[in-house]
Amino acid sequence: MIKAGIIGGTGYTGVELLRLLHNHEGVEVIAISSRSEAGQLVGDFFPSLAGQTDLAFTAPGDAILNECDVIFFATPHGVAMKTASSFIDKGIKVIDLGPDFRLRDKDEYAQWYGLENFQDDLLASSVYGLSEINREQIKQAQLIGNPGCFPTTVLLALKPLIENKLINLSSIIVDSKTGVSGAGRGANQAMLLCEASESIKAYGVSGHRHYPEIKQELSLLSGGEPIGLTFIPHLVPMIRGMESTIYVDLLDTDTDVQSVLEAAYKDEHFVTVMGAGVVPETRSVKSSNFCQIAAQKAVGGKLIITSVIDNLIKGAAGQAIQNMNIMFGLDEKSGLSSIGLLP
Amino acid sequence: MIKAGIIGGTGYTGVELLRLLHNHEGVEVIAISSRSEAGQLVGDFFPSLAGQTDLAFTAPGDAILNECDVIFFATPHGVAMKTASSFIDKGIKVIDLGPDFRLRDKDEYAQWYGLENFQDDLLASSVYGLSEINREQIKQAQLIGNPGCFPTTVLLALKPLIENKLINLSSIIVDSKTGVSGAGRGANQAMLLCEASESIKAYGVSGHRHYPEIKQELSLLSGGEPIGLTFIPHLVPMIRGMESTIYVDLLDTDTDVQSVLEAAYKDEHFVTVMGAGVVPETRSVKSSNFCQIAAQKAVGGKLIITSVIDNLIKGAAGQAIQNMNIMFGLDEKSGLSSIGLLP
Amino acid sequence: MIKAGIIGGTGYTGVELLRLLHNHEGVEVIAISSRSEAGQLVGDFFPSLAGQTDLAFTAPGDAILNECDVIFFATPHGVAMKTASSFIDKGIKVIDLGPDFRLRDKDEYAQWYGLENFQDDLLASSVYGLSEINREQIKQAQLIGNPGCFPTTVLLALKPLIENKLINLSSIIVDSKTGVSGAGRGANQAMLLCEASESIKAYGVSGHRHYPEIKQELSLLSGGEPIGLTFIPHLVPMIRGMESTIYVDLLDTDTDVQSVLEAAYKDEHFVTVMGAGVVPETRSVKSSNFCQIAAQKAVGGKLIITSVIDNLIKGAAGQAIQNMNIMFGLDEKSGLSSIGLLP
Amino acid sequence: MIKAGIIGGTGYTGVELLRLLHNHEGVEVIAISSRSEAGQLVGDFFPSLAGQTDLAFTAPGDAILNECDVIFFATPHGVAMKTASSFIDKGIKVIDLGPDFRLRDKDEYAQWYGLENFQDDLLASSVYGLSEINREQIKQAQLIGNPGCFPTTVLLALKPLIENKLINLSSIIVDSKTGVSGAGRGANQAMLLCEASESIKAYGVSGHRHYPEIKQELSLLSGGEPIGLTFIPHLVPMIRGMESTIYVDLLDTDTDVQSVLEAAYKDEHFVTVMGAGVVPETRSVKSSNFCQIAAQKAVGGKLIITSVIDNLIKGAAGQAIQNMNIMFGLDEKSGLSSIGLLP
Repeated sequence: MIKAGIIGGTGYTGVELLRLLHNHEGVEVIAISSRSEAGQLVGDFFPSLAGQTDLAFTAPGDAILNECDVIFFATPHGVAMKTASSFIDKGIKVIDLGPDFRLRDKDEYAQWYGLENFQDDLLASSVYGLSEINREQIKQAQLIGNPGCFPTTVLLALKPLIENKLINLSSIIVDSKTGVSGAGRGANQAMLLCEASESIKAYGVSGHRHYPEIKQELSLLSGGEPIGLTFIPHLVPMIRGMESTIYVDLLDTDTDVQSVLEAAYKDEHFVTVMGAGVVPETRSVKSSNFCQIAAQKAVGGKLIITSVIDNLIKGAAGQAIQNMNIMFGLDEKSGLSSIGLLP
Repeated sequence: MIKAGIIGGTGYTGVELLRLLHNHEGVEVIAISSRSEAGQLVGDFFPSLAGQTDLAFTAPGDAILNECDVIFFATPHGVAMKTASSFIDKGIKVIDLGPDFRLRDKDEYAQWYGLENFQDDLLASSVYGLSEINREQIKQAQLIGNPGCFPTTVLLALKPLIENKLINLSSIIVDSKTGVSGAGRGANQAMLLCEASESIKAYGVSGHRHYPEIKQELSLLSGGEPIGLTFIPHLVPMIRGMESTIYVDLLDTDTDVQSVLEAAYKDEHFVTVMGAGVVPETRSVKSSNFCQIAAQKAVGGKLIITSVIDNLIKGAAGQAIQNMNIMFGLDEKSGLSSIGLLP
Repeated sequence: MIKAGIIGGTGYTGVELLRLLHNHEGVEVIAISSRSEAGQLVGDFFPSLAGQTDLAFTAPGDAILNECDVIFFATPHGVAMKTASSFIDKGIKVIDLGPDFRLRDKDEYAQWYGLENFQDDLLASSVYGLSEINREQIKQAQLIGNPGCFPTTVLLALKPLIENKLINLSSIIVDSKTGVSGAGRGANQAMLLCEASESIKAYGVSGHRHYPEIKQELSLLSGGEPIGLTFIPHLVPMIRGMESTIYVDLLDTDTDVQSVLEAAYKDEHFVTVMGAGVVPETRSVKSSNFCQIAAQKAVGGKLIITSVIDNLIKGAAGQAIQNMNIMFGLDEKSGLSSIGLLP
Repeated sequence: MIKAGIIGGTGYTGVELLRLLHNHEGVEVIAISSRSEAGQLVGDFFPSLAGQTDLAFTAPGDAILNECDVIFFATPHGVAMKTASSFIDKGIKVIDLGPDFRLRDKDEYAQWYGLENFQDDLLASSVYGLSEINREQIKQAQLIGNPGCFPTTVLLALKPLIENKLINLSSIIVDSKTGVSGAGRGANQAMLLCEASESIKAYGVSGHRHYPEIKQELSLLSGGEPIGLTFIPHLVPMIRGMESTIYVDLLDTDTDVQSVLEAAYKDEHFVTVMGAGVVPETRSVKSSNFCQIAAQKAVGGKLIITSVIDNLIKGAAGQAIQNMNIMFGLDEKSGLSSIGLLP
């Protein structure tokens, strides 16, 4: 039985890790920490867990965390960077659901996060945890930078097209839409039901932190080519779900994109290529670790790829558990067998 | 491996049975029937199942159904009454999620459902499948009338109070609220997002089919006493979830209701009595088989019991699987281990 | 042109006053105050007003407020009590949308609001502003205690039945449901879209501040009889709208309640009695000042009255403007002519 | 007093015309027709109008329609084409909210709507009713083709940029999002609350009927240049609201787009250019006739223009009334003075 710890467990990512690991037969969560809630029973804090667990939140520095085989950081940027090494040094595997080990370029990190990343060695040893892209490195990794939610939708959608050199890399436009849970559980006026429901808006138009992450990984997929990228996220009045509509130009307009996608993902359990002409909707993957993808040609000639995930699962906690399964040699689907909650 | 069949699989109850049984290690769904969709692939019909199953809908009379160990009827009233006996006669266990085997009084059934129940013997041999009330009979049963969703909230809330003779039975008022999924998947104008969201209303004020079912079972719990019941359901703008607020008078106002409830349910996995002063919300049980219950005294002296479930799970498909587990001697929690999806 | 001022204009009631008075031909808002936003342009603060007004928020004590003919307090309890007299003394009419001038009994006020009401004279001179009940006194009033939203639904529903002595006063049960906007615009975690949508729950079970207000006014309608009242509000996942389902016993079960209601409200523009058998829904009154009411007998014998309003309009800002119209001898419908926004 | 008639009044556009004209002091609706509801009281059919009107639906051919000064067609494509001439011939002005008089090219119409447009003369005499673009022709028109909702968001956003020849016309990408009300009031399973809420998806990827309309009008704005256009709409879980995010390339990257937009719309009441850096959200224009627009440069160099409307108002009924006001020489704002309903 793998012993897992969660650092920063009071947010939506934390409770989603708890929920998913609750159904994982090979893992037991033995510690969950919170600065603000230390001492509080988890089942009192999250009413969905009332009566289902005896866990209480510990303080972040509690020694119990050192008894874990794996630590999940469900914390804002900067936290894992500061404290991951203390676990790594003890041989404990670390999966950071925050952004500290995603960007390879320290200047980019500093520019987008307003913070110096001083962990050169850790960064160098870490693996970007998009399971379907880096599975082999993940197997050997002790430290994972778990991908952002938006990048996950885009990278899975474009991987086969870029690896097969099928699209023009100089003008990729990504219009993404996310449910409100991505904004977290903090008491933010803009995320009140009265402010965020019955409305849609773009945000981060002048720049979003997932931009450099998408660009970095697209470039890596292309073998190091420069990428011309535009990325605009939108806030949608729903709890969970994320969709990206991606506009690209095929180099050869006769390419059979459907076949390329199907071939690329025929052995991937968590990536579903929709039948020709079927457009995915986020509700189909709600509460599951699946990513559904489709490609169609639009009037005017652009190729349109649409890609949907549950932002809290394949976009965060589920992908983290998938990575953990890979790191520990477990069945990659363990704890992640749920299909979409419909309706 | 138990072989299960689902009759009438294109509605919300049908797909929920599929979803839950997908995670049940001891059961395989070998057949799912539909008059309208026979021949259609299940994974094409329900996009949440795309790529996850090779099942196709069969016609209702298909022979494959006879190879099942258990048949779930997810059909409107009248269907199970007509066809359940053909399975019963072959020794196949039957769980009817419709109402044909809930009401003991055939006149009541005829009055509320506009249909004669001609299956005297079947009705006599059937068990009302509220697992926490009739577990012992369910173990022996071959035919289950699975409870309605509203009755489930009310019966679990009042069972300990009635069995302990703590409340006045002559004036029980139940004000219930349900998400829209209870209205089903038919193309009903009143259930369009534009008609049903951003609104709340009472319905069935002059009479709802769950009224006689609640009254029958409350009377049985009391040992046959007459029950004075008022029951008004309301439609709430959400997909899943059901709440009942129940107004009763304690016979002795000093009764420690909290202790009574806790004692009654201390060994029941799926019924959670909330801590004193904590009011349950439907989102805490969303996507789970739990029922959460609380009792508090209101200004003015009434005792208020509130009770929440996921109407499609503990109120339908989950309870049906719980009953199946009991009937086949499996762990009652098999396939039902998920906790609430929060947020 | 009547000059109006709003004190505490940054909440939902404040912006609703602005929106409604924007369409009122006889009124100009010349000042709107806010402690936190003084100096800020109203059109920058509320994007719905971008480009539509030159108003900026003033500080609460700004002299411009003294030039008003009428002041609306859209403030928490305690504020109007402290500062209303400075306007009253100058001959300015005051309408308090908070609770300071609703409860006649100072002990009740202290008990429910945790504050001493020291304004004996003001309280004595104030009028409870439920327009359809106290229209004649409102005409003469200089100070209005504008009713709470829940009391408005209940009092309009029961007024004809109590005045005509048709119901048992000892056991009135009110089960109310409200949209989230009633909780205000503060950054409250429990009101985040992710926490409050897709859920319903009871709240204030052990006591809600509108309880004594409902009880006081029901007793006044009855000529001073004692009232046995139970009142439980619920939070519903929608922005606007409030419904009360009221359970009462008719003294004479043969009473033609439909006719009683129709007779009572035949001359009231803002109260609509639904046709026999039609149950009102909150969406029908969304964005309007209407209250829709219906009565039906339920199985079991209780009389059920359902009543719906837009909580921010007839339950707050609209009723305040209706009262202003009455106080200034204007057409009662001025600025309030909108019908429900459907869908 | 202008006498107005509505043909096809049972949908969302019909009831919105009724609601807005109810507040128009210069217009009286004397007739509203419906094939299916002829004879039915409007106040019974639309509960938001209960008690507010004596109108009943007439049959479509009723003579009362000939007494109107203006007829609004709120009908599917094909209907106005067949019957508008009978009103035109009598000197009655006609505003078609459907698509029959939008596309100048009959072949395009036939291709996208599967129907021959045989009304050459009517088509030739009709004016495309985007008020801010064609105001002068609308003044003289007897027949208006009222614009589609998506085209309205795009044309108002791009008009100043195209007329000033500031952008590359060969690659315009429009990613639009709409609330569900655009799908109408028909009993469509995909628009059930349980199917359409908590989800987002693209639709019409392979072609949407508003595509040729947008392209035609963009080309006209450019003086006849060819347009390279990609347009993908998305369905968002909300009732009202429409947003377009438009990706274009500036010919000169130093262009001060903010000033261009502000100059273009400084005298237009219904088009609001947001302050620099402020992104519009659909809720700010909910229940109003406003269009809010903003432009920003994105990382990567594209110019992003975002544009929001209430699809049922500026995207349908409100724009139709604005056109009527222009045609009859009324104040363009008559009946349209409401600002956004917030929250």
